[in-house]
Amino acid sequence: MIFGRDESVLLFRFEDGEDFIDTFVRTLSDNGLHSLIVVSGIGMLRDFTIGWFNSVSKQYEKELVTVPHELLHISGNVSLKGGKPFPHLHVTLSGPSRSAVGGHLFGGTVCNTTELFAITTGDLRLIRDVSGAATPLEFRK
Amino acid sequence: MIFGRDESVLLFRFEDGEDFIDTFVRTLSDNGLHSLIVVSGIGMLRDFTIGWFNSVSKQYEKELVTVPHELLHISGNVSLKGGKPFPHLHVTLSGPSRSAVGGHLFGGTVCNTTELFAITTGDLRLIRDVSGAATPLEFRK
Amino acid sequence: MIFGRDESVLLFRFEDGEDFIDTFVRTLSDNGLHSLIVVSGIGMLRDFTIGWFNSVSKQYEKELVTVPHELLHISGNVSLKGGKPFPHLHVTLSGPSRSAVGGHLFGGTVCNTTELFAITTGDLRLIRDVSGAATPLEFRK
Repeated sequence: MIFGRDESVLLFRFEDGEDFIDTFVRTLSDNGLHSLIVVSGIGMLRDFTIGWFNSVSKQYEKELVTVPHELLHISGNVSLKGGKPFPHLHVTLSGPSRSAVGGHLFGGTVCNTTELFAITTGDLRLIRDVSGAATPLEFRK
Repeated sequence: MIFGRDESVLLFRFEDGEDFIDTFVRTLSDNGLHSLIVVSGIGMLRDFTIGWFNSVSKQYEKELVTVPHELLHISGNVSLKGGKPFPHLHVTLSGPSRSAVGGHLFGGTVCNTTELFAITTGDLRLIRDVSGAATPLEFRK
Repeated sequence: MIFGRDESVLLFRFEDGEDFIDTFVRTLSDNGLHSLIVVSGIGMLRDFTIGWFNSVSKQYEKELVTVPHELLHISGNVSLKGGKPFPHLHVTLSGPSRSAVGGHLFGGTVCNTTELFAITTGDLRLIRDVSGAATPLEFRK
């Protein structure tokens, strides 16, 4: 991981083989960061798990994909949950057929590289309550 | 809808069951907002209508999807058209099979929640002319 | 191409028939721009070439798509490579069936219009070395 910063703009370059979520959260923690908007993210992922939330069963239906996929985009945010940076990320990816798949990102391994950019939310803190099962995003000054 | 703002960064959290476009436009109007870039948008939508523009017939071919889908990303902008905030949004979504679909967003209902972030364009106003059938985006200081 | 700027926010409106990459790079060069994050990009493309990187053969497997597709999103960045602005862009698109495809963007023709927005990275320059086959993204102040 190579991390760079200029005021409100944050730049993360992931290396081949890194655990995407672990590396991201560790870099955020090491730099005292939370309350971010992910504005761009491309590269490749392999061995990633994506999920679709079943509104009837109230469970995520997850799928592990091992084949390396182009990471077309990462969208989402980082909030503060229980005192720790908590990423909520959705990904769009494409494989050998160029067809796109996607979902809630539960984890994955960086393939070759991933270039991710985020911006800060100024004085607005993004907060998620840890008391309940659902943890809606809140904004506090 | 929970709306937050810190200078150039705007945060919108939609609630389950809200009409996505109506709620977005109303929040923009209530806060005197236009000329925005949507930089992130994730959550879930159901009963959404997406379209592909047929360049031969000059018509959108629309599809209504009722099954709840993960909203992988919203990209686009808000301009001023006829004195009102006008969103031009494209969405990427995935359903139970994790396959992605998408198109021009004509409408949809928020499922569980949607977290959307936008940034302002400073002194540059985004304008769309209402005089013709086509309404290309213009920039004015 | 209509280009607008307000401090850290850049706005590009492409016209029907323009070569997407050539027009983008020329506009960047003409305005002395590099080190950008693409935060939004929608519209339509036709005759576009997208690729999936085969990690075994170390080659991109490319596909040329002639049918006009809705451009659901462009994600990526512009760095300085050999003294010139170098875009690294991934795209997500959808065709008549509303199914999404995507990959590394090698080129394409603007259909109707494309509205692209980018932000600058302040004092952080995005650099790619030209000495080797791989050109990882670096950050320098």
